[in-house]
Amino acid sequence: MKQVAILGSTGSIGTQSLDVIRRNPDRFRVGVLSCGRNVELLERQISEFHPQIAVTAREEDALTLQKALRESGNAGAGNRTEVLWGQEGLKTAASSNACDLVLNALLGISGLAPTMAAVEAGKDIALANKETLVTGGALVMDAVRKAGVRLLPVDSEHSAIFQCLEGNQGRKIRKILLTASGGPFRGWSRKQLESVTLEQALHHPKWSMGKKITIDSATMMNKGLEVIEARWLFDVPVDAIQILVHPQSIVHSMVEFEDGSVLAQLGNPDMRIPISLALGYPDRLESGEAELDFFDAGSWLTFERPDPEVFRCITLACSASRAGGSYPVALNGANEVLVDLFLHGKIRFIEIQEYLERILDAHVPEYHLTLEKILQIDQEVRQTAAQIARKVG
Amino acid sequence: MKQVAILGSTGSIGTQSLDVIRRNPDRFRVGVLSCGRNVELLERQISEFHPQIAVTAREEDALTLQKALRESGNAGAGNRTEVLWGQEGLKTAASSNACDLVLNALLGISGLAPTMAAVEAGKDIALANKETLVTGGALVMDAVRKAGVRLLPVDSEHSAIFQCLEGNQGRKIRKILLTASGGPFRGWSRKQLESVTLEQALHHPKWSMGKKITIDSATMMNKGLEVIEARWLFDVPVDAIQILVHPQSIVHSMVEFEDGSVLAQLGNPDMRIPISLALGYPDRLESGEAELDFFDAGSWLTFERPDPEVFRCITLACSASRAGGSYPVALNGANEVLVDLFLHGKIRFIEIQEYLERILDAHVPEYHLTLEKILQIDQEVRQTAAQIARKVG
Repeated sequence: MKQVAILGSTGSIGTQSLDVIRRNPDRFRVGVLSCGRNVELLERQISEFHPQIAVTAREEDALTLQKALRESGNAGAGNRTEVLWGQEGLKTAASSNACDLVLNALLGISGLAPTMAAVEAGKDIALANKETLVTGGALVMDAVRKAGVRLLPVDSEHSAIFQCLEGNQGRKIRKILLTASGGPFRGWSRKQLESVTLEQALHHPKWSMGKKITIDSATMMNKGLEVIEARWLFDVPVDAIQILVHPQSIVHSMVEFEDGSVLAQLGNPDMRIPISLALGYPDRLESGEAELDFFDAGSWLTFERPDPEVFRCITLACSASRAGGSYPVALNGANEVLVDLFLHGKIRFIEIQEYLERILDAHVPEYHLTLEKILQIDQEVRQTAAQIARKVG
Repeated sequence: MKQVAILGSTGSIGTQSLDVIRRNPDRFRVGVLSCGRNVELLERQISEFHPQIAVTAREEDALTLQKALRESGNAGAGNRTEVLWGQEGLKTAASSNACDLVLNALLGISGLAPTMAAVEAGKDIALANKETLVTGGALVMDAVRKAGVRLLPVDSEHSAIFQCLEGNQGRKIRKILLTASGGPFRGWSRKQLESVTLEQALHHPKWSMGKKITIDSATMMNKGLEVIEARWLFDVPVDAIQILVHPQSIVHSMVEFEDGSVLAQLGNPDMRIPISLALGYPDRLESGEAELDFFDAGSWLTFERPDPEVFRCITLACSASRAGGSYPVALNGANEVLVDLFLHGKIRFIEIQEYLERILDAHVPEYHLTLEKILQIDQEVRQTAAQIARKVG
């Protein structure tokens, strides 16, 4: 019986993780649940899964939840859920004996410190929070090696690469082929991107996801962040990672070996497949997932080159990763702020990449980063990004 | 240093195997070479690779070769190639200390007894002769298990499946997706197949292979034989193997697991990739193979259902495998004779499947087959097939 912490249990990945756990009650016990603002859903999840610990983002929500749980009779001995809050609460929960495996589906850089705490406490990690590796790659991978824990990818692309590599330990990789749906603006010109509306950007053709990642998918920054994540997870140089636009989202990524052989992982675009592999590893779980229909959805698979001049975010992310040090921290922090400004109607879609480029050009890099340093640089970059946008707006 | 026997070294797979060995002189030493009728090429191969043993099909060729080698100075101490002939020669060579690994690229059922001899002598097998498993599946797999040797597939499809399974030992397979180019008559109606010429049937759109296998590819019997081979190699029921027509020949086959995840192996259609994996296993060898170009050859991958009413050979092969016993032996033997008759202009293309169906309908099956029994049934079936064709012709 695996004890699982689901950090970010009320989001898209979190709820789908609980679907997988619900189908496999003999394998998993939920030890920790956590939410951002959706306390109502968290409360329902608590009454279904009875975790040892629940964490909210804000203290006030924790107090309300505590009260509600007490009133609903959750206070009975052996059945009591302890309520914590904030980053400290997440770190405590993720390193507690309430879990052996931490599925991290937190949003943005808020996922970094809880991952580090969990790794240092010897927990295996199922990672859906790509910012953990984008901002803290060197730090986290070093801690993972020292602690001897497993770092299992949940992103569909990284899960695909992981699966292609499973039988190929010690064999030389020629190239990782990271697929991308291309988002809603595949094939658009830079000119066309200038008049993109919020509604258009939020309409992803293949995947139903949270708002931040949906916008990242539209700018293709998501793919840029994934290149950086893959670079750390699979220990390959950025230039050995090639992005293939594959609009059908059936091939989730591929690996080419030195003999010219390419392994690929395919599946319906359903996150429960990679989630269940990360949770159940080393087993594959019976998913109830429909067979991939090669005579319908998969009967026609195409691959295109993304245009790095139109989707500048890809180029910026690869450059930031090559430059190293704090560049990826700056890239990620600035992007989080800019996407939020776009979501609130403060800047235009095209300005996400334009401001980002300016911020990175002006960034003074730091190296040999500690966790504290990363979080500090992130804060500074966010201020810069907010200022630039204010000035222009 | 692996000592390798190449049985059938002058054929398409044989010469490509020697290409792979030529590129990796530090890994392999050629211990055995063998030919059918092409003694001239065998002699050149002997002077390049200096095997301990060479085998010809016919005694007269062996004597001529022996003489030629003596005259050319091959008789020097420590450099001498012993020349053997026929099935006995192949069995002796394949079980001798001249090899640790036997790559079997013999034609037809003549591959069965040498495989058995090699397995019983504890040699690993790289299998390009699918008839070995089509006719002797139960017998061979049992011997492989008892001897604890490796049976490595060389067929591109089976190598693909093998690669998809490498990291998935012990995990449940939902389905094997065996791809087929569809051959030169993909999409044709039964009516159209009636007027196929020899020239048309010998023109394969993707692979350059020997004549027998090229015709098998045109009738799609090749795919039927591959279903039977896969059934034994990977221990799955015939009904868990689905044939996908994939005219680009880039995806060489796939495996679907119980979690809904599908692994696929892709590559340029070049047999040196699966050959080098079988020879070099567990290593992948640096192949010099060009990268698979997803923006050209692989930019557009399609999948179709084969029509089991037009390509009856697929249906007949699957039925024969389900029925078991000597049915696959009859299928294979009759097919070898009928293809040969077609190649010699004695019967029409469509008659291959028509006569085959009649022969199988009339076949009285035997079970619990020994090697001798299999070879005897094969002989009987060949006579029946030749008779039927004569009567009609």
